[in-house]
Amino acid sequence: MSKLLEFPIIVINFKTYIDSLGERGMKIAKDAERVSNETGVSICVAPQFTDIKSIASAVNIPVFAQHVDPHPPGSYTGSVSVEAIKDAGAIGSLLNHSEKKLQLTSIFTAVKMLKSAGLFSLVCADDVEPAMAVATLNPTMIAVEPPELIGTGIPVSKARPEIISESVQRIRSINREVKILCGAGITKGDDVRRAIELGSDGVLLASGVVKTKDPGAIIREMAEALLNSR
Amino acid sequence: MSKLLEFPIIVINFKTYIDSLGERGMKIAKDAERVSNETGVSICVAPQFTDIKSIASAVNIPVFAQHVDPHPPGSYTGSVSVEAIKDAGAIGSLLNHSEKKLQLTSIFTAVKMLKSAGLFSLVCADDVEPAMAVATLNPTMIAVEPPELIGTGIPVSKARPEIISESVQRIRSINREVKILCGAGITKGDDVRRAIELGSDGVLLASGVVKTKDPGAIIREMAEALLNSR
Amino acid sequence: MSKLLEFPIIVINFKTYIDSLGERGMKIAKDAERVSNETGVSICVAPQFTDIKSIASAVNIPVFAQHVDPHPPGSYTGSVSVEAIKDAGAIGSLLNHSEKKLQLTSIFTAVKMLKSAGLFSLVCADDVEPAMAVATLNPTMIAVEPPELIGTGIPVSKARPEIISESVQRIRSINREVKILCGAGITKGDDVRRAIELGSDGVLLASGVVKTKDPGAIIREMAEALLNSR
Amino acid sequence: MSKLLEFPIIVINFKTYIDSLGERGMKIAKDAERVSNETGVSICVAPQFTDIKSIASAVNIPVFAQHVDPHPPGSYTGSVSVEAIKDAGAIGSLLNHSEKKLQLTSIFTAVKMLKSAGLFSLVCADDVEPAMAVATLNPTMIAVEPPELIGTGIPVSKARPEIISESVQRIRSINREVKILCGAGITKGDDVRRAIELGSDGVLLASGVVKTKDPGAIIREMAEALLNSR
Repeated sequence: MSKLLEFPIIVINFKTYIDSLGERGMKIAKDAERVSNETGVSICVAPQFTDIKSIASAVNIPVFAQHVDPHPPGSYTGSVSVEAIKDAGAIGSLLNHSEKKLQLTSIFTAVKMLKSAGLFSLVCADDVEPAMAVATLNPTMIAVEPPELIGTGIPVSKARPEIISESVQRIRSINREVKILCGAGITKGDDVRRAIELGSDGVLLASGVVKTKDPGAIIREMAEALLNSR
Repeated sequence: MSKLLEFPIIVINFKTYIDSLGERGMKIAKDAERVSNETGVSICVAPQFTDIKSIASAVNIPVFAQHVDPHPPGSYTGSVSVEAIKDAGAIGSLLNHSEKKLQLTSIFTAVKMLKSAGLFSLVCADDVEPAMAVATLNPTMIAVEPPELIGTGIPVSKARPEIISESVQRIRSINREVKILCGAGITKGDDVRRAIELGSDGVLLASGVVKTKDPGAIIREMAEALLNSR
Repeated sequence: MSKLLEFPIIVINFKTYIDSLGERGMKIAKDAERVSNETGVSICVAPQFTDIKSIASAVNIPVFAQHVDPHPPGSYTGSVSVEAIKDAGAIGSLLNHSEKKLQLTSIFTAVKMLKSAGLFSLVCADDVEPAMAVATLNPTMIAVEPPELIGTGIPVSKARPEIISESVQRIRSINREVKILCGAGITKGDDVRRAIELGSDGVLLASGVVKTKDPGAIIREMAEALLNSR
Repeated sequence: MSKLLEFPIIVINFKTYIDSLGERGMKIAKDAERVSNETGVSICVAPQFTDIKSIASAVNIPVFAQHVDPHPPGSYTGSVSVEAIKDAGAIGSLLNHSEKKLQLTSIFTAVKMLKSAGLFSLVCADDVEPAMAVATLNPTMIAVEPPELIGTGIPVSKARPEIISESVQRIRSINREVKILCGAGITKGDDVRRAIELGSDGVLLASGVVKTKDPGAIIREMAEALLNSR
């Protein structure tokens, strides 16, 4: 069943771009599914909340939410509950993206709530120490993303490779199980290859796929680079 | 076309209750549609973000989001964009619910963004002066909801009727166009009738419908009370 | 007693600049006091919280806090209470500065709490409609500050004079008592004169005084411009 | 020089209680100083921001702020800067109290900024895993405070002793240097003794001292209990 997470992995964050909303997001998700089927590489998509249900029911690749609130179901108007994303077909959620920073205690609670619901958590961190902090909370994955590189096209694996290798090493000293993704500035297959060589278990990216003319082509380039670097 | 808002109106906030999630939310929406069709009363539902698209495409009554973030489309991971709720079929959004309070400037921006997108705004306020403040921002509707009464079953129209009548009068002195809803503690047809008599244009409610055994029956009771009080 | 507010007025926000911290802030406060004594113009200072007590006890001009939290005294670790700034000698507080935006309901509560304590409130707004919204909450003063001009040296009175004149007119239609200040980009006596001519009751400024070589000289220039424009 | 931190330690958080504001806070600080001088036990106080300067200049025991914002000096109206609390005489700050929760990345930044300024950090955590997370950020001290016990008079050392002993053990596996305090519900000398026996380096408390009739007497009881448990 291809919905299980396999590593190394590619996670595509749709953010709130127009380019990945509704029908256009569906097309990117189907491109990702096709590449995943053809290459065997695990590729996840994280659409906007309103698109989770339609995408999750249309494609057979893992769908993530971009965020969940650490509240139980109930009187929380306007919140995104773990139960809602699960019901909609998501198998997990991003947390603490640098564009949606969370209190430490909310990360802790949300990771626990996702786990209790049988869902995966992908927690972002913006530097080595915060990544280590996140590792103590036992999420499924940690994405190390220096926010100053997000959306720049300058891959963290080139600009600050030491932040990846050092994160991998220091996270491993605390938590041997957690998977470590590399984020920020990834736009080419070569960036993906380099991220894997630095010891990461995959990449988290957004504009590098979503804002390109042919998302399917760049997803394929990245999947193949990832295959070759295994 | 029954999707246009007509007043007096009933707005049902699904919050993040399990009782109104997914299939159960769909059932309440269909109950609301049936009552609306049979009585001619305008009834809106505000499901969780993940349910907006499926509900909006299945029923022919107005669907609202429970919240939108005041950001343009773009690099806003985990945010709820106006474009997303519109694409999913919502015709407007609640804003500033006491469970999702917003900065003054965010209410201003979100109301403007919804209007630019051709969507309606329903801004909550927890007392007379905040309701007047909201009135200056020209939303479509204002719901006056004393937070200490939310979920209590004690209707604001009984506990603090003066907050409704005074709000109506003072809001009208600032803004003659805005519609004024009465929220908090509404559980019976009689509460709805009283709200209309106090000068409001409808009611915003949640647990009074969602947490009951037979939501369809209570929606009908309220719609009929509203008809009789016209 | 010179601590009473008289209009037109000059309010100097010290922000968290090093240039206005501790002894350096005391010097600016004494400069302001001297100019106030010599010209008869009402000049207020808003130092950092830690400097309120020493400055308020050393000078005989009004001292404001830059912010207060809308909580009663009690279990609110790390909050700034109305009681604390009053005990320290402040006669009021700024609220909702664009660098410390507040929820609508918090502005409402804080204004009420300050008034109950016998203190003044100066609420910032970033556009015409939010300024009108604030006017319904009956603060002592409203400062209209387009955030895109803050710290630029481009005075709002030149860049967007209509935002001042329109704010004055529309705020007056709602609230005849509230005083209206003009903020953002004010660095010269001429900017102050223009602000008064546009109908405002004074100016709120920060870097235009604090980040200059001779704060005393620029305060004097502004006080004299204000005298001449009466 | 008695301002250096020595362990075990007692830290008294004044919160925003009226009972510890201004002159009343000064009296508690002087009581703490007297007990510290007479027993040799290190006792710190954390008054409201507006009282830091007067208390720090009047007593010869360590003074902490209750919070700092993770911003450099500059255009941050209403924020509490590291520079301000240092200039006022504080030697460190609490961070992330359950009443002033911070984003993970803000804790990381604030701890670094305090360290760069030569100040100490005391970061609160509400459970074992968050305490471990904090340990990776290398603060001076961690206070483990289950929020459900704060202000109850039920000491964590009795209600949930395992949270202390487990925290101590698991924090030590990550960080051998950090000092570990025990918080929440501590009101008696016996609670302090128990906290030390469970392996902690001291206690953080508030109402247990501030809201009692004779704060000096209870501080003495706690200092003596701490002496006896060394």
